[in-house]
Amino acid sequence: MLQYARPLQRVIEQLQRLPGIGPKSAQRLAFHILRCGPQSARELGEAISALPDAIGRCSICHNYTEKGICEVCSDPRREQSMLCVVGEVSDLMALERSGEYRGLYHVLGGLLSPLEGVGPGDLTTAGLLQRLEEGGVTEVILATSPSVEGDATAEHLRQLLSRYEGLSVSRIALGLPVGADLDYQDQVTVARALSGRRLMD
Amino acid sequence: MLQYARPLQRVIEQLQRLPGIGPKSAQRLAFHILRCGPQSARELGEAISALPDAIGRCSICHNYTEKGICEVCSDPRREQSMLCVVGEVSDLMALERSGEYRGLYHVLGGLLSPLEGVGPGDLTTAGLLQRLEEGGVTEVILATSPSVEGDATAEHLRQLLSRYEGLSVSRIALGLPVGADLDYQDQVTVARALSGRRLMD
Repeated sequence: MLQYARPLQRVIEQLQRLPGIGPKSAQRLAFHILRCGPQSARELGEAISALPDAIGRCSICHNYTEKGICEVCSDPRREQSMLCVVGEVSDLMALERSGEYRGLYHVLGGLLSPLEGVGPGDLTTAGLLQRLEEGGVTEVILATSPSVEGDATAEHLRQLLSRYEGLSVSRIALGLPVGADLDYQDQVTVARALSGRRLMD
Repeated sequence: MLQYARPLQRVIEQLQRLPGIGPKSAQRLAFHILRCGPQSARELGEAISALPDAIGRCSICHNYTEKGICEVCSDPRREQSMLCVVGEVSDLMALERSGEYRGLYHVLGGLLSPLEGVGPGDLTTAGLLQRLEEGGVTEVILATSPSVEGDATAEHLRQLLSRYEGLSVSRIALGLPVGADLDYQDQVTVARALSGRRLMD
């Protein structure tokens, strides 16, 4: 059967390896890149090629960074006594977008998942405990997603952290999303919103 | 607000310019590229960078090709008297996948669309007429998509080609797709299937 010219076929195959990109999308993207001409193809291609070499993990919190220590950890205006534990860097960014949090982070680099073979040793838990040993942190917020994996990870960390006396360990609130219609929420969310109810002042 | 490290932000912005890729997908793709490491990022990046310089248009039919003349036009086993006219190279590939057609092609490079400012001068119509002037072609199949633009383009070409005596000009059949449920088809498709009915032998 007729194939696309080799360089085009190669781009289509490479794009298909990306998550959520099937054969049709890969073809459409490749045609778009072709149409936009050499300069924008080079801009995109070079940005992608350079990415993994340009970006590393922060040696303290495992956030992505260009330097050894990330922007958050090296910011002295951040509240140094609070630590928010998240699964991935994208979760950290979601919390930053809320504008509500001014402390430090710790990125686990995943969530516990026996099905996918992710155990405690695959996360950056050791680094987290070391940060707590060094002192100065008085509050830890477990902000893993409210999924089976996120809940299991939070519970695992709660047990690990229980031996630090005087350390306050909390879990981000589960409940109704703002603007939601109670009638349209799933029953687990409604149950969690009920059990997590707070007294009104 | 906190931004991703610059090389990461750059890839996310570049990916967002591609069709069908929003901020969330761009972020997910960038994270995937990061996780897969330097080698596969370089493979993808270099394939993209090199694409527009490596691929040109066939000087006869305007198919994409690495050489001056594409694989179809340079294949002597192809039926030289039949010409199938399509809008884009992806349409040519769809016809090839059917395995039903063994003639040559002509890629218009688009479809007439007054709304998007595509007029007859933006298509490769001149090249098509020149091929017909040169002789040897006895049948032209207009295989533009059955959309408003595709139908208008086919009608425009039919008028242009009517001055070639002895040239058979046909339009690909419109009707029900194979495996379709009559009940679920839109009324225009059903109307076209009725008006395009064929005598059974």
